[in-house]
Amino acid sequence: MSVTAAQGFVAAGIAAGLKESGALDMALVQNLGPLRSAAAVFTSNRCTANPIIWSRQAIVDGSIEAIVLNSGGANCYTGAFGFQTTHQTAEQVGARLGVSSGDVLVCSTGLIGTGDQSFRDRLLAGVDIAAPALTADGGPNAARAIMTTDSHPKQAAVTSPSGWVIGGMAKGAGMLAPGLATMLVVITTDADVSSAQLDTALRSATRVTFDRLDSDGCMSTNDQVTIMASGASGVVPDSAEFEAAVTSICADLAQQLQGDAEGASHDITIETIRAATEDEAVDVGRAVSRSNLFKAAVFGNDPNWGRVLAAVGTTEAQFDPFDIDVTINGVRVCSSGQPDQPSESIDLTPRAVHVLIDLKVGASTATILTNDLTHDYVHENSAYAT
Amino acid sequence: MSVTAAQGFVAAGIAAGLKESGALDMALVQNLGPLRSAAAVFTSNRCTANPIIWSRQAIVDGSIEAIVLNSGGANCYTGAFGFQTTHQTAEQVGARLGVSSGDVLVCSTGLIGTGDQSFRDRLLAGVDIAAPALTADGGPNAARAIMTTDSHPKQAAVTSPSGWVIGGMAKGAGMLAPGLATMLVVITTDADVSSAQLDTALRSATRVTFDRLDSDGCMSTNDQVTIMASGASGVVPDSAEFEAAVTSICADLAQQLQGDAEGASHDITIETIRAATEDEAVDVGRAVSRSNLFKAAVFGNDPNWGRVLAAVGTTEAQFDPFDIDVTINGVRVCSSGQPDQPSESIDLTPRAVHVLIDLKVGASTATILTNDLTHDYVHENSAYAT
Repeated sequence: MSVTAAQGFVAAGIAAGLKESGALDMALVQNLGPLRSAAAVFTSNRCTANPIIWSRQAIVDGSIEAIVLNSGGANCYTGAFGFQTTHQTAEQVGARLGVSSGDVLVCSTGLIGTGDQSFRDRLLAGVDIAAPALTADGGPNAARAIMTTDSHPKQAAVTSPSGWVIGGMAKGAGMLAPGLATMLVVITTDADVSSAQLDTALRSATRVTFDRLDSDGCMSTNDQVTIMASGASGVVPDSAEFEAAVTSICADLAQQLQGDAEGASHDITIETIRAATEDEAVDVGRAVSRSNLFKAAVFGNDPNWGRVLAAVGTTEAQFDPFDIDVTINGVRVCSSGQPDQPSESIDLTPRAVHVLIDLKVGASTATILTNDLTHDYVHENSAYAT
Repeated sequence: MSVTAAQGFVAAGIAAGLKESGALDMALVQNLGPLRSAAAVFTSNRCTANPIIWSRQAIVDGSIEAIVLNSGGANCYTGAFGFQTTHQTAEQVGARLGVSSGDVLVCSTGLIGTGDQSFRDRLLAGVDIAAPALTADGGPNAARAIMTTDSHPKQAAVTSPSGWVIGGMAKGAGMLAPGLATMLVVITTDADVSSAQLDTALRSATRVTFDRLDSDGCMSTNDQVTIMASGASGVVPDSAEFEAAVTSICADLAQQLQGDAEGASHDITIETIRAATEDEAVDVGRAVSRSNLFKAAVFGNDPNWGRVLAAVGTTEAQFDPFDIDVTINGVRVCSSGQPDQPSESIDLTPRAVHVLIDLKVGASTATILTNDLTHDYVHENSAYAT
C-alpha cells in the first residue's frame, strides 16, 4: 500500500526542519533496479516552480534513479537562487546515492516564494539524513513527509495475479485543479516496462483521474505525477492490464485527495452524460465544479439545482437549454426546462453527493470530482501563510 | 440620483408579497416620452430565465414604454407556465398603462425554479398596485424593490451642463460575473437620443464596467442592463459626452455592486498593464479574480502574491513567466521571477485592495473588480434557498 510495495524500491521520510512543527517534511524514493524506467506529467501552469523546471529536463531520457520531495516550501518564484537550490538538492542526492544528479527528480510543495538560504541549507542537510534512512518499508513515512495541509497520508497499491505490483503515494489538499497533473504523486512498480510504456500508461491514467479532480479550481505551480519501474519482479505485464492497474491506482489516489481536500465537508461527483463529445462532458462538469454558489449550497445541504444550470449555461457544449435533466442523489429535480421532483426529498447530509447532468445530445460521458465550499476552506486558506 | 432623476420618467416600488419578509419586491418604471428609445444587454448564459427570453424580443424594435422588475423569484427554469407568467405580466403592465405589452420589458431576480401559480398571482396583483403608484419621485423606492441580498439600494445620476440627465439603479450582490450584463440595471435619460445611439453607448459602457466586475465567478441566468431615453429635455447631446456619461453611470453602479457583494470584506481592483492586447489583460485579471485561494488570502489580510502568479499562469496571455511584476497596494512584492519587497509591509486591513500585474510585453491595460472570499459569502450562499 505504498511506494515501497513494489520490489526494487526503498524510501524514507524524515524531518529536515522545513516545517516549523518539526513534522516529517522530506521524502526520498530510490529505484534499485534493475530497470530505471520512468515517466512524469507536470502542471500545465505556465508559472512553474524550480523543481518542475528541473524535473522536466531530468525525465527527458526516461531514466530516473531517485526522486526527492519536500513539503514546507514550494521553491517557486525564488529566482536563480531557487533554481540552484533545486540543482544542488539533486546533486546532493546523486552524491549520497552514487548516481547522476541528472537522474534525480525533485518535487517541492508549500508556500510560493519560499526558498532562501536557510531553506536550501535544510534541504541539503535533509538529504544527508534521508539517504542512509532508505529502507524497503519506508513508504508510509515518505507518504507522511509530503503532506502539507493533508490530514492523513494517501497511499494505494495493486497486485497483479501475474506477479507484479504497483504502489503509490500522493499529497493534495489545496490548489487542486487540473493541468495534466494536479498534485505530488509518486507511483512505483516492479513490472518490467519501458519508459515509453510508462509514459503511455501514465498519460492515459491521469487524463481520466487526476485531470478530472477539480476541488477548488486553482491550478498549482508545483504539481508532478511520476511513475518509476524497477523491473524487479522480472515480469513483463500485459499492457492492457498494466494500464488498467495504473489507472486504478491513480483513481484511488484521486479519490483520497478529494476526500481530504481542504476544509471540504462533501465529496461531489458530477457525472455528465449523453454529451456530444467527451471534451464537452468535461467542460460541463468542470463548469459546475467551479460554481462557488453551487458548492456553497451543497455545504449548506441545499440541493440548489438552479445553480447547476446556471453553470452549465456558461459552457459552449452542445445541448438544448430547455431539455437538460438534472438529478441529485437519484432525485430528478429538473427536466424539460422546469422543476421535476421536489428537491426537499434530497438528503445532502452524507458526505457523498452525486450530480447527474443529462445533456441528451450524444453518447459521451465524463465525471468530475469536486468538493463543497465551506467555512473551513475559507479559514484554512485565509490563514495558511501566516 | 435615481431612475426618476431624468425628466419624463415615473417609477414605483411596491410590496407584491413575493418576498416573505413583506419588503418591497416589485419596481415599475415608465417612460412618458416624448421618445421611447431603448436598448438593453442581456446575460450571455445559455440557460436563461423567462424574462430574458421575453425582453430579448421586446427590445428588438428599440422602443420601450415601461419596464417591470421583481425580486423574490427568478422565474427561471419554470417551463412554459413560467414564460406565460412573464407574458401575462407584460400584458398586465400594458393594460394598466395603456401601452402595448410588446413595449414592456420584464426582469426577475431571486431563486431559480421559483414561478408557480402563487408567484404569478402576486406578480399580476403587484402590477395593479404599482401602476397607480408611479410618480416622478418613485426612483428610490424602485431601487429598493429590486434588492435581493443587497444590503442597500444602488443609484447614480449624472447631469450634463448641456441640460440633460442620466439616472440609474442596480441590484447585484450574488452571481456577479460577466456575460455582457451581470445584474439588473435600469438607466434612464431625458437626452434626445435614438435607440441605436443608446445601444452603442450602452455596449461601449458595459464592456468596460459591468463586464469587468467579477465578484464570484458565477454568471446569472437573469441579468439585464436596460437604458431608456425620454427625450424630455429636448437636448440632443454630444455623442462623445453622452457615451462618457453612460460609462460613468455604469462604472459608478458597478463599483456600488462590488462594494455590496455578498459577504465581501474587501473590494479588490486587479489592474493588468502592458499586456499584448486588451483581451489578454482582461483574461489575466479575470483569472486572478477567480482564484478562491487568492481571494481567501485577502480575506485573511494576507498578501499571498504566489497565488496571483499561480492564477496568471493558467492563462494563455503573452508574457514571460519570469519577468512579471506584481505590486499589491503599492508594494512590489515580486519582480523578475522572485520576491522583491517584503510583503509584511503591506496593510490589507482597509477594504480597498489594489493588485497591479505588469506583463511587460505590450501597451494594453484592463481592470477587473472583484471581492474576497469570506465566511459570510459561504454562509449567505449556503443558506440562501432555505
